[in-house]
Amino acid sequence: MSEIFVSAEKLSNFIKSVLLKAGVRHDVAGYVTEGLIQTSVRGVDSHGVRLLPHYLKGVKGGRINPNPNYRFKKTSASTGMLDADHTFGHAAGMEAAKRAIELADEAGTGHIAVYNSSHFGAAAYYALEIANNDMIGISLSNTDALIKTYAGKRPFLGNNPICFAVPCNSEEPFCLDMATSVVTFNKIRQWREEGLQAPSGVGADNEGAETTDPNDITMLLPIGGYKGYGLSMAVEILCSLLTGMPYGPHIPKMFEAPMNEKRLLGHFISAIRIDCFQSKDVFKKRFSQLMNELRTEPALNKDIPVQVAGDPEKKHTRERLKKGIPLRQKEYDAFKRIADEYAVKFEG
Amino acid sequence: MSEIFVSAEKLSNFIKSVLLKAGVRHDVAGYVTEGLIQTSVRGVDSHGVRLLPHYLKGVKGGRINPNPNYRFKKTSASTGMLDADHTFGHAAGMEAAKRAIELADEAGTGHIAVYNSSHFGAAAYYALEIANNDMIGISLSNTDALIKTYAGKRPFLGNNPICFAVPCNSEEPFCLDMATSVVTFNKIRQWREEGLQAPSGVGADNEGAETTDPNDITMLLPIGGYKGYGLSMAVEILCSLLTGMPYGPHIPKMFEAPMNEKRLLGHFISAIRIDCFQSKDVFKKRFSQLMNELRTEPALNKDIPVQVAGDPEKKHTRERLKKGIPLRQKEYDAFKRIADEYAVKFEG
Repeated sequence: MSEIFVSAEKLSNFIKSVLLKAGVRHDVAGYVTEGLIQTSVRGVDSHGVRLLPHYLKGVKGGRINPNPNYRFKKTSASTGMLDADHTFGHAAGMEAAKRAIELADEAGTGHIAVYNSSHFGAAAYYALEIANNDMIGISLSNTDALIKTYAGKRPFLGNNPICFAVPCNSEEPFCLDMATSVVTFNKIRQWREEGLQAPSGVGADNEGAETTDPNDITMLLPIGGYKGYGLSMAVEILCSLLTGMPYGPHIPKMFEAPMNEKRLLGHFISAIRIDCFQSKDVFKKRFSQLMNELRTEPALNKDIPVQVAGDPEKKHTRERLKKGIPLRQKEYDAFKRIADEYAVKFEG
Repeated sequence: MSEIFVSAEKLSNFIKSVLLKAGVRHDVAGYVTEGLIQTSVRGVDSHGVRLLPHYLKGVKGGRINPNPNYRFKKTSASTGMLDADHTFGHAAGMEAAKRAIELADEAGTGHIAVYNSSHFGAAAYYALEIANNDMIGISLSNTDALIKTYAGKRPFLGNNPICFAVPCNSEEPFCLDMATSVVTFNKIRQWREEGLQAPSGVGADNEGAETTDPNDITMLLPIGGYKGYGLSMAVEILCSLLTGMPYGPHIPKMFEAPMNEKRLLGHFISAIRIDCFQSKDVFKKRFSQLMNELRTEPALNKDIPVQVAGDPEKKHTRERLKKGIPLRQKEYDAFKRIADEYAVKFEG
């Protein structure tokens, strides 16, 4: 498949300009742009710039509020609730990350339940912000029903993301950003397009039966069976119940729900100060040592070195900051149409 | 295999008496007994009463300090460090759970890093204590190296337990208590004893190659490949680095290390107050509704109903409180020998 490479800077300027033209407030547009670009630069294409057309539809349809009136309430020394007023999850999540850092500065840890939010893209954006402030960052979100219920035949809980980011020495933070399914639904779509079989143990058909035909897969299997299903539940408890938002099948679906329907998503964002436990210097030094011990472990296949979470994204970042962000032809064309519609220049 | 059923009460009295005779301080002996009995009653035999002989060796050998001098330091409104002085993990973990609850009472959340600890048995004991105090409880521990490093050929990180317990209406708390491997090593041993093949995707041999021969399996595979490996790392960061304890292969091994060697384990215990986010009544009501919606989901196999985490343990508890805790002959014999050695009556 041919790809067109566009520099992160050009794409960033384009997206920000389009969002502003679409009536998105300056601060909100800034977070959305930064989140999308960071995600694409890190190689997580499913949650990056390719979602721009979808989000613009959300603004137009009334699903996403471009000019939110946040309401934050500190509820204890270490906790708070953020009403995101149905704006972009990127802006809501980043506001929450900043509040979590503020609380942690004072109280050792900070934990923000975000409600009335929308899709926040890659969970890493928020946890990395916290890790870049020298704290351990955790970001979680509920999502619409997608993973097969363990022992059931339908999806109920979402493929809820769990992100855990931790600062270290001399490199970007460690960052585990995972969903609770074995593979993403994007991977299923890719196998469909390429006419390939799926491996066993990744998806099930309409009746809940496991299948390797990607065309029949309508729900994803959780990692470790009841374990991934249980992890989804844990995230659901924090992101749907502690936030007061709908859960599982009651969450309006990202693509299927009408574009004037609010998503009513919830997120849970935590910051943990390292120096409440160990000297930051010692912690970071030991952590870097731990990661390097792992990276020099003997590899099973000599062509595939041992890595730690976030290493592939660091490699992508190095490459994409040089070569640009790859757009597929249909994404490039969609951006061209958006450029016309919003009268913003898009140079590929 | 024939099993001998002994009532939880009789076993509890026996274990407590033996521990006291072995010189374990009263409060410590109480926690160890309660933790072991609760774990066996919940059906988690691998971490229950059968470990008594191992722990007694630890006390005799000097690995476990029966009379600890805890040192607790509150390091911020929501955080603290507990030096467990090498006592039983059960006592250390429970001390930490109580401190976490105290901090959360004041600051919304409480997070305790425990260091200089030893094996704490089932993580559920501590998270359930917190959930029984109407808070969300999280308990984590490092463990010695057991899971195959993703893309590597050796174990480095442990099969670190993650427990998440949450109060609800009209039943014991929800409780997800999982390790990061697909199956436990006990399961491998069971397949060996029964002459059965292991399923694929659960274990690897000495060279790191996946195998289904349980006799060749020396390390466990993590759930979801790099995901379970990443989750183990997240737990390791909190339990080894934030506590200042050794990590991965540097942790003295539970069974292989000499019995005079301290384990130097670390735990991380968190309590989150629900009413800092939602009314407790509304939260619990919605959570019970969510669990019941899941339990009435159509089952894939009509003989295997859909459950949520902790349901199998609740069923075991109902049964075992009536029938007693099943001991295998060799466990029963070991208890008889202990009864003789410590001059404590053991009635089977």
